[in-house]
Amino acid sequence: MTNIDALPSWNDGAAKTAILDFVSRVTNEGGQDYVAPEKRIATFDNDGTLWSEQPYYFQVDFALDQIKALAPQHPEWSDKEPFKSVISGDIKAVLSGGLPALVELVIATHSGMTTEEFDVLAREWLASKRHSKTNRLFTEMVFQPMLELLTYLRASGFKTFIVSGGGIEFMRAFAEIAYGVPPEQVIGSSGKLKFEMRADGPVLTKLSEIAVIDDNVEKPTVIQNHIGRRPIASFGNSDGDLQMLQWTTAGNGPSFAMLVHHTDDAREWAYDRTSPIGQLDKALDEASARGWTVADMRKDWRRIFPFD
Amino acid sequence: MTNIDALPSWNDGAAKTAILDFVSRVTNEGGQDYVAPEKRIATFDNDGTLWSEQPYYFQVDFALDQIKALAPQHPEWSDKEPFKSVISGDIKAVLSGGLPALVELVIATHSGMTTEEFDVLAREWLASKRHSKTNRLFTEMVFQPMLELLTYLRASGFKTFIVSGGGIEFMRAFAEIAYGVPPEQVIGSSGKLKFEMRADGPVLTKLSEIAVIDDNVEKPTVIQNHIGRRPIASFGNSDGDLQMLQWTTAGNGPSFAMLVHHTDDAREWAYDRTSPIGQLDKALDEASARGWTVADMRKDWRRIFPFD
Repeated sequence: MTNIDALPSWNDGAAKTAILDFVSRVTNEGGQDYVAPEKRIATFDNDGTLWSEQPYYFQVDFALDQIKALAPQHPEWSDKEPFKSVISGDIKAVLSGGLPALVELVIATHSGMTTEEFDVLAREWLASKRHSKTNRLFTEMVFQPMLELLTYLRASGFKTFIVSGGGIEFMRAFAEIAYGVPPEQVIGSSGKLKFEMRADGPVLTKLSEIAVIDDNVEKPTVIQNHIGRRPIASFGNSDGDLQMLQWTTAGNGPSFAMLVHHTDDAREWAYDRTSPIGQLDKALDEASARGWTVADMRKDWRRIFPFD
Repeated sequence: MTNIDALPSWNDGAAKTAILDFVSRVTNEGGQDYVAPEKRIATFDNDGTLWSEQPYYFQVDFALDQIKALAPQHPEWSDKEPFKSVISGDIKAVLSGGLPALVELVIATHSGMTTEEFDVLAREWLASKRHSKTNRLFTEMVFQPMLELLTYLRASGFKTFIVSGGGIEFMRAFAEIAYGVPPEQVIGSSGKLKFEMRADGPVLTKLSEIAVIDDNVEKPTVIQNHIGRRPIASFGNSDGDLQMLQWTTAGNGPSFAMLVHHTDDAREWAYDRTSPIGQLDKALDEASARGWTVADMRKDWRRIFPFD
């Protein structure tokens, strides 16, 4: 590597040093920790790891907007939770329904159209909707230090994948532009699809049946299914990433596991052990016990968003 | 491109010309059919398209051998079809059970172990078992013209994927060495996996529940799930590939669809419309109606196997 700082938005400290040291070791041909380029697989969670996730997952905001837009065609929603609360704008009531309510909203708004129609909806929304707190596009609320890390890993011969609980097609609508991660390297939760031959040609329709929720114990299974190799580096921020980090660090060779710790209430948000969104509790304990790297956003990140 | 013949095992003819013409058009910057490199996705069926599949799928031969090896631990198999016929060596009786019998054998031999244990079994078998007719390793029975095509497409900026009814983990055990296709670009039929934390660390165990049979109408859905872009070129050899070719050719830009037609009983096998393995009937009609390329193995291929 050159002397140019590949991670200028990272303050000098243990996290930055650990990243640079790991990459240096696995790319050092002839060194005992050298890893061939084709085995340099790095997996990244998305929500809370590559972009923000507060006050609730950005994809939920998309689903809420779609519910409102579709409400005139669904009179039955006016009496039925969680739709009723969405339509009346009572987001607190919606969130009180927990994950099942959110999943129901996502299913209702992510099925019943073709994959291409959904892609248009997602792209239009991402290009126009702004975050309630920052007034920025959601795709602007990505973490500058993580963008630098993605670029640095790719420049070091890594193939970078997203492995996230977010919807696979929702993320693919922006991951290539926002992160430089092509669709085939984006893995997420997904619904079943159906091939249909229509008069003007074949389409894939999105069904309301869930295929996989890419979180917790499913992250390693989805990694195996899509990638077929164990990552040597993984990056997450919540207990939903714990098994991915366990799987990554259980290989025979060198490995790297990192948690993004949301500690900066001034520039972003501060939350961990008791947060309903992005809870980080068990994984923080395991990071401590096993010496995983923890990036403390307040201390380790000079800049958080590209617009800072 | 240079004047070097990228496809030396292809005889001059319509198939070779069509391939060269398509690649030339989509890689010609400034031309009206130019396709950006990241969109140059090519998908290949495996059985019958990249390697032989007679007298039955090679993976079935693997399953048969595993059944015999496991039989002492399964006394109940001695009374139960299709296991009974496998153990007594009556392959004809096994095949008479059709696809359901084969699926049962595959499930019985592809579950109940970890992904890493299965990988070892598959690699050991592939490195030792020989084909009953050619006495060659199965990984030698790959098609030289298709190897050249894979290499040529990659040299032309394509990303090459396998999309096959074969088992995803079985194919990954040899695809990187045999075809230059890395595990993350191999898509196939798969069973469900389970993440388990054992005393010495996490494992992924292979369950007996099928996740997807990657054939027919599922090929486009699996392509969407794993790749997230529509291929611009697809290669198959049987009716199980029809929907993949339909999906590929239904995009807005230039596209290419090709069938490998097994017409050479002297050097390989000759079969199509009525074959129980690799039936090619509807797709052959559609290729004719829509002007898809058909590679006639006897006429178009100067050499079939690398050892020829």
